Amino acid sequence: MTGAEAVAALRDAGIEIDEGALAGLMAGVVAAPVAPGDAWTDLFGGNLPASARAALIAHRAALAEKDASGLGPGPVPKERLDAVRREMAGQGLDGFLIPRTDEYQGEYIPARANRLEWITGFTGSAGAGVVGTDQAAIFVDGRYTLQVQSQVDTDSFTVRHLISEPVTDYIEKAFSGGQRIGYDPWLHTQSGLAALKKAAGRSGARLEPVAVNPVDAAWGAQPAAPLSPIRPHGLDYAGETSSDKRARLAEALTDKGVDAAVITASDSIAWLLNVRGGDVSHCPLPLSFAILRADGSLDWYLDKRKLTEGLQEHLGNRVALYDIDEFPDALTTLGAAGAAVQADPATSAALVFDKLVEGGARIVEGSDPCLLPKARKNAVELAGTRAAHTRDGAAVSRFLSWLPGAVAAGGVTEISAADTLQAYRFRDPLIRDLSFDTISGAGSDGAIVHYRVTEQTDRPLKEGELYLVDSGGQYLDGTTDITRTIALGEPNDEMKDRFTRVLKGHIAIATARFPAGVSGGQLDALARQYLWSIGLDFDHGTGHGVGSYLNVHEGPQRIAKGSLGVPLEAGMILSNEPGFYKTGAYGIRIENLVVVTELAGQGAGDKPLMGFETITFAPIDLNLVEPGMLTEAERAWLNSYHAQVREKVAPQLTADEDAETLAWLQSATRSV
Amino acid sequence: MTGAEAVAALRDAGIEIDEGALAGLMAGVVAAPVAPGDAWTDLFGGNLPASARAALIAHRAALAEKDASGLGPGPVPKERLDAVRREMAGQGLDGFLIPRTDEYQGEYIPARANRLEWITGFTGSAGAGVVGTDQAAIFVDGRYTLQVQSQVDTDSFTVRHLISEPVTDYIEKAFSGGQRIGYDPWLHTQSGLAALKKAAGRSGARLEPVAVNPVDAAWGAQPAAPLSPIRPHGLDYAGETSSDKRARLAEALTDKGVDAAVITASDSIAWLLNVRGGDVSHCPLPLSFAILRADGSLDWYLDKRKLTEGLQEHLGNRVALYDIDEFPDALTTLGAAGAAVQADPATSAALVFDKLVEGGARIVEGSDPCLLPKARKNAVELAGTRAAHTRDGAAVSRFLSWLPGAVAAGGVTEISAADTLQAYRFRDPLIRDLSFDTISGAGSDGAIVHYRVTEQTDRPLKEGELYLVDSGGQYLDGTTDITRTIALGEPNDEMKDRFTRVLKGHIAIATARFPAGVSGGQLDALARQYLWSIGLDFDHGTGHGVGSYLNVHEGPQRIAKGSLGVPLEAGMILSNEPGFYKTGAYGIRIENLVVVTELAGQGAGDKPLMGFETITFAPIDLNLVEPGMLTEAERAWLNSYHAQVREKVAPQLTADEDAETLAWLQSATRSV
Repeated sequence: MTGAEAVAALRDAGIEIDEGALAGLMAGVVAAPVAPGDAWTDLFGGNLPASARAALIAHRAALAEKDASGLGPGPVPKERLDAVRREMAGQGLDGFLIPRTDEYQGEYIPARANRLEWITGFTGSAGAGVVGTDQAAIFVDGRYTLQVQSQVDTDSFTVRHLISEPVTDYIEKAFSGGQRIGYDPWLHTQSGLAALKKAAGRSGARLEPVAVNPVDAAWGAQPAAPLSPIRPHGLDYAGETSSDKRARLAEALTDKGVDAAVITASDSIAWLLNVRGGDVSHCPLPLSFAILRADGSLDWYLDKRKLTEGLQEHLGNRVALYDIDEFPDALTTLGAAGAAVQADPATSAALVFDKLVEGGARIVEGSDPCLLPKARKNAVELAGTRAAHTRDGAAVSRFLSWLPGAVAAGGVTEISAADTLQAYRFRDPLIRDLSFDTISGAGSDGAIVHYRVTEQTDRPLKEGELYLVDSGGQYLDGTTDITRTIALGEPNDEMKDRFTRVLKGHIAIATARFPAGVSGGQLDALARQYLWSIGLDFDHGTGHGVGSYLNVHEGPQRIAKGSLGVPLEAGMILSNEPGFYKTGAYGIRIENLVVVTELAGQGAGDKPLMGFETITFAPIDLNLVEPGMLTEAERAWLNSYHAQVREKVAPQLTADEDAETLAWLQSATRSV
Repeated sequence: MTGAEAVAALRDAGIEIDEGALAGLMAGVVAAPVAPGDAWTDLFGGNLPASARAALIAHRAALAEKDASGLGPGPVPKERLDAVRREMAGQGLDGFLIPRTDEYQGEYIPARANRLEWITGFTGSAGAGVVGTDQAAIFVDGRYTLQVQSQVDTDSFTVRHLISEPVTDYIEKAFSGGQRIGYDPWLHTQSGLAALKKAAGRSGARLEPVAVNPVDAAWGAQPAAPLSPIRPHGLDYAGETSSDKRARLAEALTDKGVDAAVITASDSIAWLLNVRGGDVSHCPLPLSFAILRADGSLDWYLDKRKLTEGLQEHLGNRVALYDIDEFPDALTTLGAAGAAVQADPATSAALVFDKLVEGGARIVEGSDPCLLPKARKNAVELAGTRAAHTRDGAAVSRFLSWLPGAVAAGGVTEISAADTLQAYRFRDPLIRDLSFDTISGAGSDGAIVHYRVTEQTDRPLKEGELYLVDSGGQYLDGTTDITRTIALGEPNDEMKDRFTRVLKGHIAIATARFPAGVSGGQLDALARQYLWSIGLDFDHGTGHGVGSYLNVHEGPQRIAKGSLGVPLEAGMILSNEPGFYKTGAYGIRIENLVVVTELAGQGAGDKPLMGFETITFAPIDLNLVEPGMLTEAERAWLNSYHAQVREKVAPQLTADEDAETLAWLQSATRSV
């Protein structure tokens, strides 16, 4: 189906659009992930006739097939590097920095921002590049050391470790006095840039912002910015109107003597305006920028083609819409008024600060004002997420019930298992996406903490091995994230010992009580102590914050070493996911989500007593538990947890086909 | 005894010194703390005849009596503030910063550095001041909010909270664009200054270094720099020669491509040169500076009058001695050679960096190179500290045995109790000082974490109350630090509950095991969990590093929230001191020192398994323990610990007068 044919089909349905406009729209559509039910077609209006809709879907498919972006696993032609170097030479640059980020600094980036992949062929989810005139380097972390060797031309790019041989060190050593290293001021946070500038300073080189990114200039077929419909997130899910949220935040700005706050984190804006979108995978958010003023009004900078019918009414007349290209000048204008403007150096691009300074603003550095209010979920959000978790628990239970028989019958692989789990989840009418790519790791693949199965690494699930599956769903009423580790066949004693130690750590967090004021980071040791006592540990955080039909990784709450995070407050959602990984053998992780809860009237001190409510409900594999290693209290927790799983999940298993799952559930949640 | 008389007495003993030189020396002697046996007289040679020695001691006493420094509790005459403001005006300054630090940035400062006390009358051990042209502020923390009101003229000085209303905020608000705020570049670390400069920048004011400190200029009778004898710290105690230490450090500098390291922490220099001194209270160190070169040679900057006989031979010919006044120029010279110079922005004065930059050095920011090697005690140091702790345990046990009867008999106060404990300690021939002022708190005074009893606050120890005593000794072979909490009479149930929770936390640290790489900060929660579970906590760190006949507070190892500290390594000494404080009622703290130990061959993982060896031996009050709250393992630890206390202490109780203590010890260490 060509563009002309699609234009004709739309005209038949009474929708006038010229071929150029359609091409522009479809370029953005192709650059966005596909949500269930091809919901992107709503960009053409809410009541699209079936024939027009079918034509658009066919047109999209034809366009997607012709993808010329040049993205995908490499090595890529050396001409790309040469072209970027020519652009650099034209700008008088001796070096150029290529972070794997976009101008919104989110966890997931649209295709057009994957400049590192285009120039190197590296498809990993984290990394960085530095290009010099006669040398270049790519930086990847431990999980990608093998992958980078197969995907990147290592004659052109030296491979370095992102953490132990960081970009800062490289800048310091590879450049010398008087040299000019370019950076794109959209692609570095103000804080991140400060560290890079310091490193450049040590070598005598200068870091200089570029007006045109040399990679963009060289990348002929760079994908468009993604276009996905933006929809209201109703009060039934959000629990507080946007105008009430803005009034709360505005009051805080006024108290600080601040005239306006710049907000560049897309999930913050989605929360603040009670809207959701789909511009990147797994995060239901529109990419956009905002300026919140101390009077509670908000200027929203976005591609207006993403707006769906009724959205403007939902936003109300205190939210003004502007094209996203107007954002930089708006910052300068804001500064020119001599305003005191709050901006977050940890989340906002350096360009934001440059423009504010240019205008003459008095900059007040401060955290994104949505960060804490968004983290403290309200009663409606908590009710929603509890409901989503209850349904998600049934989907996971069906999967866990199905798994052993299917494995015994043969033919189940990491990919097919993940697909089956996804299919169970997608039976739910409220699901919109997975909350991240499912981690489905059998045997030694389970020991790779961020394992993402590919056709190349896919392997069958086998008896005698452990299988680790970490997955979640984005439901309209909540975001889930759960990990279960399953013994296929009979586990050995070491597996049971390690699993039980992980479980004891999991229970220690689940049952922790502490006075208000304690931060997640302070609790981290409780999850590790039973592994520590025999000299073991796990090399990731114990818990991350989770959004409410928003990012599955959100801050500022966390349970991890290194940074304390903020004091835990009632309503915050976190994961509780200790693990243990034996390289080349097996991986273990037990993950439930918990809500921070105030235990009113129960503390002995002046501060409220706080604790956690576990909201994830699916059986923990008892075949891996060594009951003799549990204390009486731990055993009581496990039995009580499984009783709750039964209570929540069993009533959902009402279909005829659920009979087996129901029987399995009774056994899987038995008392020990 | 006048100076002329002392000169005559010395001449009779064959020592020629003119009256001016004697006055200079004695000014330094009077400014230094007095060590046992008037060891300062060694400044006049090692074999001083008794008559000359007596004359010097009398002369010192006469001088000390005439102290005109103006130090002591205030409020002080407003003329002092006026005089400083005149000096500021002469230098064109709109403000001046008065930190409570000296140029060595140590925990204890000599009298001449107590500029804050002189200008305000505030005698607390932490604080800061800022003087403007028509306003001034003093900054103190929570423990001094009452004291500051009685000691300081609050018409002249606004009182602010050191932590919640910090100097940086004040600078930002009290000064405005174009104003000049002076600072003494000797009295701020490079890191500390950076934060202050940022704050000044926000107000538009400029921070500028002064060549002459306005307080010093106004302070007519500012005490001299302290003079105390510097002695060798023998290999029997140090365990490694200074030349071996220097060779080790020099190799690390060479590996980093660094030509020299500037060392300004006095305890680092004392460790590196195997010397000890007595310029400030409780820290057996000489105040000095050093430059270590990559060839292992060292330039030492100090007041050479402090050297005792034989010290130069002890140092050897690779240590060159310079007068301390030559240090700034030496830094400039070092830079002028284009050298790569390592300096520590966290511990070294801004002046060090200014001088290096002035000379043209390439500055390599890095931690004081002695920090980690000093923290990892060698076998000889550990043997020494174990011996010191064993003897210290006997002194503490004698005190604990004496206490209940003395309290029952009446007349024991916080001061007299501390004095009695000190007297027991000072029976030991190897003791040189207490390691800090004893914290001796009865009843509600025990709830004041850093309580320091004064004549005004002294109160009798009473039945029905708890008594908390935190104390330690500086022995030639080791530094001790122990806290015990004693029930006088019968404690109530709440006291027993809280004490037992603190004990459980103490045991959790004492018995913790963990893989190499884990930091002290990660363990902190283990000490707090049993208080947390009922909503309680304690507001201080769980553990600090301890030196080897050096500072009782040393880094970088620590067990505390906020900063992880470094990974714990074998040989590091830390305190284990959880507590609980009920304001207005009682305080509880249980403190032993522990040594980090590698448990060879016991771990299940790739990394060595680490644990702690407790080295403090004195009974923990069993009257405060609720055995029913202890697990089997906790009870076993307590009984085993008390058995060790008995084994270590009983053999030292051999004098006739020890019979009662021995009987008490048997009962105090009984199994529960």
